Amino acid sequence: MQAKHAKYQKLIEYCRAIPPTPTAVAHPCDQSSLEGATEAARLGLIAPTLVGPRERILALAKSRGIDLSQVQIVDVPHSEAAAAAAVQLVREGKAEALMKGSLHTDELMAAVVKRDTGLRTARRVSHCFVMDVPGYDETLIITDAAVNIAPDLEAKVDIVQNAIDLAHAMGSEARVAVLSAVETVNPHIPSTIEAAALCKMAERGQITGGILDGPLAFDNAIDPQAARIKGIKSEVAGCAQILVVPDLEAGNMLAKNLIYLAKADAAGIVLGARVPIVLTSRADSVRSRMASCAAAVLYAHARRGMTALPA
Amino acid sequence: MQAKHAKYQKLIEYCRAIPPTPTAVAHPCDQSSLEGATEAARLGLIAPTLVGPRERILALAKSRGIDLSQVQIVDVPHSEAAAAAAVQLVREGKAEALMKGSLHTDELMAAVVKRDTGLRTARRVSHCFVMDVPGYDETLIITDAAVNIAPDLEAKVDIVQNAIDLAHAMGSEARVAVLSAVETVNPHIPSTIEAAALCKMAERGQITGGILDGPLAFDNAIDPQAARIKGIKSEVAGCAQILVVPDLEAGNMLAKNLIYLAKADAAGIVLGARVPIVLTSRADSVRSRMASCAAAVLYAHARRGMTALPA
Repeated sequence: MQAKHAKYQKLIEYCRAIPPTPTAVAHPCDQSSLEGATEAARLGLIAPTLVGPRERILALAKSRGIDLSQVQIVDVPHSEAAAAAAVQLVREGKAEALMKGSLHTDELMAAVVKRDTGLRTARRVSHCFVMDVPGYDETLIITDAAVNIAPDLEAKVDIVQNAIDLAHAMGSEARVAVLSAVETVNPHIPSTIEAAALCKMAERGQITGGILDGPLAFDNAIDPQAARIKGIKSEVAGCAQILVVPDLEAGNMLAKNLIYLAKADAAGIVLGARVPIVLTSRADSVRSRMASCAAAVLYAHARRGMTALPA
Repeated sequence: MQAKHAKYQKLIEYCRAIPPTPTAVAHPCDQSSLEGATEAARLGLIAPTLVGPRERILALAKSRGIDLSQVQIVDVPHSEAAAAAAVQLVREGKAEALMKGSLHTDELMAAVVKRDTGLRTARRVSHCFVMDVPGYDETLIITDAAVNIAPDLEAKVDIVQNAIDLAHAMGSEARVAVLSAVETVNPHIPSTIEAAALCKMAERGQITGGILDGPLAFDNAIDPQAARIKGIKSEVAGCAQILVVPDLEAGNMLAKNLIYLAKADAAGIVLGARVPIVLTSRADSVRSRMASCAAAVLYAHARRGMTALPA
């Protein structure tokens, strides 16, 4: 077993080999979001452009002893304007990642998914938690526990593909467990049927780059012995790297459980828009914030190298 | 490629090693059904009990030069009574197979599926065509093109398992192609999703004894080159032995197409009741009738050896 936080440390190290990624930071008007952005800049992860009320940001920086003399600020009056202006920076090619500051996630996402002025692609937008779970060897990606409430099969295809792409960007393989309450297909539990469909889609090349198995119950997915006892023969069971949850409620409970009881660190990132979006919350540790940035930076970097962008 | 009808011939030969199976023949009151029963008896496939109006059956036999002196007849006045009495013979353990005579399929099946006096088991009742298709190396089982109109996933599980059991009873492996219009999973085509679910159920041991793949289009299922061109890597594609159709309409058209244009011989059998039911139509050749009997006899024989009957 690795030391706690070794996975995040490796992620950040891996990322520092890449030049800083130009990043629009929407409304960094509280301590944690401003320090998150400047710390990520100090580590060489991002080259931030702060988007928000200039005077308020400068006053906050001064009170915290943060030097913003080298940092570009786009002055806008409030959070809604900051979301729109940050998105606009991406549309103009001036930013390759987006970072959430002190505004509500919905406010930022509304600007991101806006029909004409947003950052939509053909790919569904989805959220990934990148988790460093003590006692589990793999960095765990959990998706989607934050954006898609009750995704149908079509949405799940994109949710899975986004997570696989992220795993590859982070230098990992992609063993995907599609979770349900049971590891058998139950005609009365739709998520078990969808899990089977997703596996077949991977077999047929409709989902690429990952090894899928599902339905799997949580224990079969992450515990080799639980998988063995159930007689599940699979390259995924017991050693999953990506957990695809049936819906937001199940995912949210799973993620919170890992964070609060299993003492996991959780980084958050939204994929499927033109650029990755660093989505941290005020409760996140600095380490989690840096891991979120690192994941976004690696994803943006991998995307630059992709031949087939999700246009 | 084998000579035409070689497959049926083999099936009948294989069957003749077994003692004649006691069989209740419901209402054999036209030439083809009476001759079907007596010919099957002559070949040693079945030991028939004819159930129907005695005088009418004897008159018919006399006019066709058929000797019924050694054949038991249960005298009932009409076809509905014949269906009920034939079913009753099975319930009393006096018959291990049921054979349709000159009555409507629905009339016979109504007696079979009747709640209290019928032959229901925990397994869904389903129909299999056993086809000898010129130009195709395998004996093809097509299911369900005759009984279940629009089966849901739960029903399809039994439909598949019945067909697998039949293939095994006939001494065959069970490579099962779950057919749809396309070989990819399409969230808008439910049969593609159900096909994927059935495959996973076979992986998890919820369906046993068969190798499943699907969704497959008809060409991928039976033509190795078509499968190759589509890049489908599968033990089933191109060499399927069982074709599971999405619903009765698609199945019926497929079966008729094979019979009328590809000049296939088709034997019919209903499984999932307490005993197999030989279901021939007046248009069937004697060879097809004998093949239906042989399939039923082999299934009944295998069922006797089963430890876990579908109670």
